[in-house]
Amino acid sequence: MPSTISFLSDYGHDDEFVGVCHGVIELIAPGVRVIDIAHGLPRHSIRPAAVVLRNALPYLPAGVHLAVVDPGVGGERRPLALRCGDRLLVGPDNGLLLPAAERAGGIEQAVDLSASPWRLEPVSATFHGRDVFAPVAARLALGEPLDRAGEKVDPGALVRLELPQPRVSQGAVDARVLYLDRFGNAQLNMSGEQMAEAGIEPGSTIEVETGTRAGVARYARTFADAAEGELLAYVDSYGSLALAVNRGDARAQLGLELDTAVRIMRAEQ
Amino acid sequence: MPSTISFLSDYGHDDEFVGVCHGVIELIAPGVRVIDIAHGLPRHSIRPAAVVLRNALPYLPAGVHLAVVDPGVGGERRPLALRCGDRLLVGPDNGLLLPAAERAGGIEQAVDLSASPWRLEPVSATFHGRDVFAPVAARLALGEPLDRAGEKVDPGALVRLELPQPRVSQGAVDARVLYLDRFGNAQLNMSGEQMAEAGIEPGSTIEVETGTRAGVARYARTFADAAEGELLAYVDSYGSLALAVNRGDARAQLGLELDTAVRIMRAEQ
Amino acid sequence: MPSTISFLSDYGHDDEFVGVCHGVIELIAPGVRVIDIAHGLPRHSIRPAAVVLRNALPYLPAGVHLAVVDPGVGGERRPLALRCGDRLLVGPDNGLLLPAAERAGGIEQAVDLSASPWRLEPVSATFHGRDVFAPVAARLALGEPLDRAGEKVDPGALVRLELPQPRVSQGAVDARVLYLDRFGNAQLNMSGEQMAEAGIEPGSTIEVETGTRAGVARYARTFADAAEGELLAYVDSYGSLALAVNRGDARAQLGLELDTAVRIMRAEQ
Repeated sequence: MPSTISFLSDYGHDDEFVGVCHGVIELIAPGVRVIDIAHGLPRHSIRPAAVVLRNALPYLPAGVHLAVVDPGVGGERRPLALRCGDRLLVGPDNGLLLPAAERAGGIEQAVDLSASPWRLEPVSATFHGRDVFAPVAARLALGEPLDRAGEKVDPGALVRLELPQPRVSQGAVDARVLYLDRFGNAQLNMSGEQMAEAGIEPGSTIEVETGTRAGVARYARTFADAAEGELLAYVDSYGSLALAVNRGDARAQLGLELDTAVRIMRAEQ
Repeated sequence: MPSTISFLSDYGHDDEFVGVCHGVIELIAPGVRVIDIAHGLPRHSIRPAAVVLRNALPYLPAGVHLAVVDPGVGGERRPLALRCGDRLLVGPDNGLLLPAAERAGGIEQAVDLSASPWRLEPVSATFHGRDVFAPVAARLALGEPLDRAGEKVDPGALVRLELPQPRVSQGAVDARVLYLDRFGNAQLNMSGEQMAEAGIEPGSTIEVETGTRAGVARYARTFADAAEGELLAYVDSYGSLALAVNRGDARAQLGLELDTAVRIMRAEQ
Repeated sequence: MPSTISFLSDYGHDDEFVGVCHGVIELIAPGVRVIDIAHGLPRHSIRPAAVVLRNALPYLPAGVHLAVVDPGVGGERRPLALRCGDRLLVGPDNGLLLPAAERAGGIEQAVDLSASPWRLEPVSATFHGRDVFAPVAARLALGEPLDRAGEKVDPGALVRLELPQPRVSQGAVDARVLYLDRFGNAQLNMSGEQMAEAGIEPGSTIEVETGTRAGVARYARTFADAAEGELLAYVDSYGSLALAVNRGDARAQLGLELDTAVRIMRAEQ
């Protein structure tokens, strides 16, 4: 029985890119299940896609995870397939797969797909989702062995992704925006544990500063703990600290973008 | 054999929310079919989502209907599962499920999922789609009995949804906009029968007034019965009266929003 | 075993149109596979949808191809089903299906679905995707014979689609924009072979002129061959010449729209 393929990209739903990859998978591995994780991720932006893949992983069936955010397509970047326990990750060597690979226990085997016999010939220079990644994902889902997918490569030689680290001090944390969702909620690069390390407890009032704006917020449990239109910080469903406005849009209200520096402080009593 | 799950939300397709719910369903009920009804519904807006769910219901296989538009997530609102004949509805207790439940013949059994043994632990405060609703939908699709999903609750105690009623008089109807689609077509809270009650016949010319604009329209059968750019009223594919502009956008042309009051009158001859 | 249905439309993902068609297919042909090609195509715009369907076809499993971009719904245009070898195309008679039919080897049999016994009664005047096309696609996927779907019609009598032809001269090609994707890449109505006919070789520098703007570009192999922000022409993954800006947006930079005239010239040395 073939394993499930989950599929994430920045292809969007307006064009046929996602559908054509589904078609190629069905042609090679008829009946295999494909779960679309998300395809509307910010274009060519590797870090938020890597964060989403890592966050989603525990909620996806083991099997093949296909991820394509690939601004360097057709250039020198390698196409990859990685084994991490019972998960196989397929995508470009630009850091996209690495946080998910770590979450899955680390890379046991890495394969360079540049000359994979499983590619769709002729391989285009601009659509490796269709010509390289989807066919390899389909074969792997059928149970074909990873070492036939291409050339072995040293996992230590892969392109790394720098995720910024927060700075925790007494009463304050300096963090960054890692991800912004459709609702304007901002996931930061820090956890609820790091709030506790800073001595900031759930239920307390905090100050939130970006380079250009500042606000007072509740460190709450959920949106409904704040009044409508009120800013709150909360531990989101992946364990990260996040900023939101109840029934509003924290992104707009605080002028947040990906990577915006955010300082969270215990409010003076 | 597991039943089909249909799934509606305001999660959008940009983020991983929908995909993660699919993943959770596949983990619990491998191979179960999930039909996405729509996920781009207006954010946090219960009424249009409730109307869409009710309208779509007769065209969806019986089984489980999962619906998540949930501005009160993590707060006091109850998570629910309802039995209506051969349909099981799963979603928040904020009125979202009620019009569909009525369409399906009324609620025979209601269960509060607040302490459901089927929840994904730890239950987050902000993503009950993943942690409560999807797991319950998956178990129900597998045929597990509804009364094991949580605590029995009185169907009469559920949060109701006020859908506005039209006012029909001789030669005129006062209605409201219930739904606006991607094409800018506006579904009103009235039917073709109510046009007949008002003595307005298909083929006739009508006047359409909102608070700020007015126009003359054909009461037509389909878009193609009006000239390009011309306003028309028609009985839409769900039996409701709707306003459209042939190859144009009635929403923009008449300045319509959800709940805008619209007066439809027989035109003077 | 039922064949696969692939499905393309301009219904978008905000409303329930796509989901309801999936529901109807599942009701008629439980378990049949539906691959969504794309649903965010430009509203009511037949040509780009026809181009996408034609381009995607070789990457989709044989079976039924359902396509609905249907500004004339409910009017005089016929609903159609076509046989082209092992592919069955279902959609409106407005030219949408023709380029794909040609790509699939030409039309062997054409059927007018206006009075199809497989329609969902009562047939609405505005949602033939649900009431005519999806039910017919589902029956055909189950293997029911095409000649029972409706009345035979002469393939020569179908509405044709004029796709503009490029004009190739020595050192220059006059082309048109056929398709614009989410990334702002513009597919032209010409191939890499036609560049060669004009004596313009890959690797050379070219001039690109529209009515209002002009620019110098590399005739490159892939995005990464151009500097960030630089205009390039390349043979895209379907063999067509296309314009892009590396990590940028050619549509915005050159002010391109569907059908914009574009002149490509060998640059003076």
